[in-house]
Amino acid sequence: MDNPFLVDVTRGNLVESQHRGSVAVIDADGSTVLSLGDVERHVFPRSAVKAIQALPLVESGIAEKYGLTDQEIALACSSHSGEPEHVEVATAILAKAGRDRSCLECGVHWPMGEAATRLLAAQGEQPSALHNNCSGKHAGFICLACGMDEDPKGYVRAEHKVQQAVKASLEDVTGASHTEDEAAIDGCSIPTYAIPLPALAFGFAKFGTGTGLSQGTQAAAKRIRKAVAQHPLMVAGTDRFDTRIMEVLRERAFVKSGAEGVYCATLPELGYGIALKVDDGGPRAASAVMAALVLHFLPMNDQERAAVEALAEPVLKNWNGIEVGRFRVSPDLLG
Amino acid sequence: MDNPFLVDVTRGNLVESQHRGSVAVIDADGSTVLSLGDVERHVFPRSAVKAIQALPLVESGIAEKYGLTDQEIALACSSHSGEPEHVEVATAILAKAGRDRSCLECGVHWPMGEAATRLLAAQGEQPSALHNNCSGKHAGFICLACGMDEDPKGYVRAEHKVQQAVKASLEDVTGASHTEDEAAIDGCSIPTYAIPLPALAFGFAKFGTGTGLSQGTQAAAKRIRKAVAQHPLMVAGTDRFDTRIMEVLRERAFVKSGAEGVYCATLPELGYGIALKVDDGGPRAASAVMAALVLHFLPMNDQERAAVEALAEPVLKNWNGIEVGRFRVSPDLLG
Repeated sequence: MDNPFLVDVTRGNLVESQHRGSVAVIDADGSTVLSLGDVERHVFPRSAVKAIQALPLVESGIAEKYGLTDQEIALACSSHSGEPEHVEVATAILAKAGRDRSCLECGVHWPMGEAATRLLAAQGEQPSALHNNCSGKHAGFICLACGMDEDPKGYVRAEHKVQQAVKASLEDVTGASHTEDEAAIDGCSIPTYAIPLPALAFGFAKFGTGTGLSQGTQAAAKRIRKAVAQHPLMVAGTDRFDTRIMEVLRERAFVKSGAEGVYCATLPELGYGIALKVDDGGPRAASAVMAALVLHFLPMNDQERAAVEALAEPVLKNWNGIEVGRFRVSPDLLG
Repeated sequence: MDNPFLVDVTRGNLVESQHRGSVAVIDADGSTVLSLGDVERHVFPRSAVKAIQALPLVESGIAEKYGLTDQEIALACSSHSGEPEHVEVATAILAKAGRDRSCLECGVHWPMGEAATRLLAAQGEQPSALHNNCSGKHAGFICLACGMDEDPKGYVRAEHKVQQAVKASLEDVTGASHTEDEAAIDGCSIPTYAIPLPALAFGFAKFGTGTGLSQGTQAAAKRIRKAVAQHPLMVAGTDRFDTRIMEVLRERAFVKSGAEGVYCATLPELGYGIALKVDDGGPRAASAVMAALVLHFLPMNDQERAAVEALAEPVLKNWNGIEVGRFRVSPDLLG
């Protein structure tokens, strides 16, 4: 089955590029609100499920035991830009478990944020694993290991108790089994499991509403959503899409990007979970579609609407600031 | 018409993302060697035609008049990484016309090359228009204006004699009319005209062989191909695809990327021109397909083959250097 076009990228009077993909929006009772394209195909959710991967840390009471703040919990769900604040908070999380960056197994890369990269270079420094966009999540994993009295060494491996707990949370919340056949290795070296978009969307509906979750999981999900809404800068970074959406909408939307054009969200007051995948992996299309869906479903005031609209159909400008084209989201998305 | 899949991106045992697109390979006599997908759709060639846009500078004798070197001519066809060598050569081109960077109308951006950006930041500097990936081409345009005794001011505008000459070259070489209806503005503010892939490919077959071109255009095309083959670092940058291909194959291949997943090439000894467009604009797919086509068509020794194969189907590694997936080019490409 050919997936439909989700986004056209125009230049002058013509369509220059097009992105296809699939979308599932599922209600907390499991009913389908929107289904576009081949939603039965299994998709690696990548970083879009970091908030669910953080549930064991909070639900186990280990976040509480170490006195993790809202800011720290928000960073544990993040794909951050490697700005100085992110590095500082990741360091603080590790310190609370009596550990440091030498325990991180996520690998090293220059900050995802261009300004953060230039700042680091200007200081004559090299990046460490703390600058890896996943360092907050990994610092959380290390806390989880230490709190369970497990050696954190090897915490990225599927057989480690940390990843077993993370997988159990993902299976519990999404209702989809996470099999070895459909496992692969993520950018930061932990396992990632492919599941269908409706299961992902249903999981986010439950994450947003608590429906169908145990009391403990409900409370942990609520704490995580609140923490991210209080500190949206932690979950991504300056001018990043997830940060901007949650700066505007706070607890009314929880939105998280994943690599290769995956996006997940929940709109708690509607009981909706959203999961989408752009076929070609293009993040520009994924965020434009997510913005359009949030705009379509969520009632908002003029100021909120204007802010989210700017993210949904951004104008393409060239290096001289001249408008050269636009992103145009397919009307099929909005029924 | 749905374009076929050109590249699968795998992770573990699954296909994670897929890129569709269209490809035309045309012989210097105008016959079709390969046609895949909707090749009649008009495509903005963007920077893939910079070598053709540089023809008036050379053919007019103005490059000669100003004593432009091979290195400088190679930079005039480039989308460079903004490395110190690129900035130096762009400055030298402008100086030969008695001008400086204040005449550049391409806009300013941080270097396309990440290492070049970090180097500039480490030096406490800000980028200028010289760092714009199009500064070599624009420096060439300014030479062309000055050599024609035209004020270079406004040289990016469609009505300026520079852009009129550039458009005439594009129409001459590709045989396709470049109409206002299908004009748009490129990243660097000059006009870009959408034409079908077979016309682009035919243009590159002529550029590579001289067939069907005037003697003056033939000589200019030969000079440009030779200059780029001598200085492949100038046309892109360290570790960039175009540079790597031409470091390996020299004058046997001329390959040039454009934005939004466009690629053009000529393989002169076979008389072939190649033009392709990835629907979603993804450069990773465009370069993988181009490498596969070059490998398929061009006889090469083991060492050359190994170098180009590494570009055709690169292994995807994560931040810890673990292989997590691969790029897999469609077998349909190779008949």
